[in-house]
Amino acid sequence: MRPGEQLTVVLHQTRSTDNLGAVARIMANFGYSRLILSEPVLKSIEGAERLAVKSDFVLRGMEVTSDLGEALKDCVYAVGTTSRTQLKGRTVLTPEEAMQRLAEESVRGRVALVFGGEQRGMSDEDLARCTDVLAIPTSAVQPSMNLAQSSAVLLYLCHRQGLTPTAAVEEAPGAKLGTLGALAKRMRDVMLRAEFLNPQAPQHVLNELEQTLMRARLTQREAELWLTAFKHLERAVTRGAST
Amino acid sequence: MRPGEQLTVVLHQTRSTDNLGAVARIMANFGYSRLILSEPVLKSIEGAERLAVKSDFVLRGMEVTSDLGEALKDCVYAVGTTSRTQLKGRTVLTPEEAMQRLAEESVRGRVALVFGGEQRGMSDEDLARCTDVLAIPTSAVQPSMNLAQSSAVLLYLCHRQGLTPTAAVEEAPGAKLGTLGALAKRMRDVMLRAEFLNPQAPQHVLNELEQTLMRARLTQREAELWLTAFKHLERAVTRGAST
Repeated sequence: MRPGEQLTVVLHQTRSTDNLGAVARIMANFGYSRLILSEPVLKSIEGAERLAVKSDFVLRGMEVTSDLGEALKDCVYAVGTTSRTQLKGRTVLTPEEAMQRLAEESVRGRVALVFGGEQRGMSDEDLARCTDVLAIPTSAVQPSMNLAQSSAVLLYLCHRQGLTPTAAVEEAPGAKLGTLGALAKRMRDVMLRAEFLNPQAPQHVLNELEQTLMRARLTQREAELWLTAFKHLERAVTRGAST
Repeated sequence: MRPGEQLTVVLHQTRSTDNLGAVARIMANFGYSRLILSEPVLKSIEGAERLAVKSDFVLRGMEVTSDLGEALKDCVYAVGTTSRTQLKGRTVLTPEEAMQRLAEESVRGRVALVFGGEQRGMSDEDLARCTDVLAIPTSAVQPSMNLAQSSAVLLYLCHRQGLTPTAAVEEAPGAKLGTLGALAKRMRDVMLRAEFLNPQAPQHVLNELEQTLMRARLTQREAELWLTAFKHLERAVTRGAST
């Protein structure tokens, strides 16, 4: 396994080409190369190469997606970063705990580390796309870290954790977040039709359900099974509604 | 003890106000405030405040010194950073080992973390002013880290290590590096006069001697004792030369 192959760095709603360049450099510093820009605010990456010293290969290989779900679709695990230490209904991991999980999950397939935009970070909705959430503990004096700095801290810890084990993948392939995302969408449709979810605000309850499936560490086969089940349910519910 | 009081961050030969501002912010993020610019290359700190978001108090309290010895004079321990993993005659610590020592030494007095300039890092001579040396392990693809990024990694680790113990200082006060520096200068003069050191290249041997004293973790009283001893020796050697 090539070093770093299992870790994907996702920059969501990034605004600054300086930050993009700095993140590319820090990825190269620690042997990572797979970078995805999700829903970028920046219009062009021109200027990023100034800070991406000896790491232009990271920028050249970078993918761009229109949303976070798309960016994570091939991953079996994603941890989102936040500066908020309290999040309703979710346990906020320490960086060390998160790195431990990233390393463990990386035997099942691709794993991702997701950073939010410079101005507002990741929304609850963005974080709901991630299996776990982490916060870097900071001082009350200035709790908000610069994007490039937090990537330096976390990628250093990934590197030290020895993410990218050389051991053969033994576990059954983990469910891709793309499949889980499709499942969540299907669940939403079915449950709205079944009038289980409140049509004014369906997402909160849906997120809770989705989280339990993420926690269950589904295999890809199991996730597909769920998805097929909900396809059948949807057909049944639609049939029921039309009769 | 106020958080962060024991840790001094020294930026030696810094060139970029962006880096200065970024370091000020990361210090504020992790609760540190004591910053010294040693022998700065930058002519003005104007522009640093752009990146020093909510950390202008760090810049306002910053001291400037003309050389590294002066910057470290009140410290009992200093660890210098390098990207070189091999240094003749010195053990290069891992960041975790260095943080452990910084925490241990901080019960004796002020401790410093020293970063070299953007272009050439710290010279052997600069590193000889430091009790220990550390290197952040990086990938061969791009081994050189940006100054602001390496400060993010190391100050995070300091913070996690819980530098700034609240326990009362119990050990005898450690020797200040200023006193050790004065001792080294005195040793140099005496040993040159005594024709022990090669006048063409006295520093290498002198550095080795100095390092052994640093390793001995002298108390301030012991260092002053050594200094007084060398003052006496100098007088004796000078007298011998003039007779």
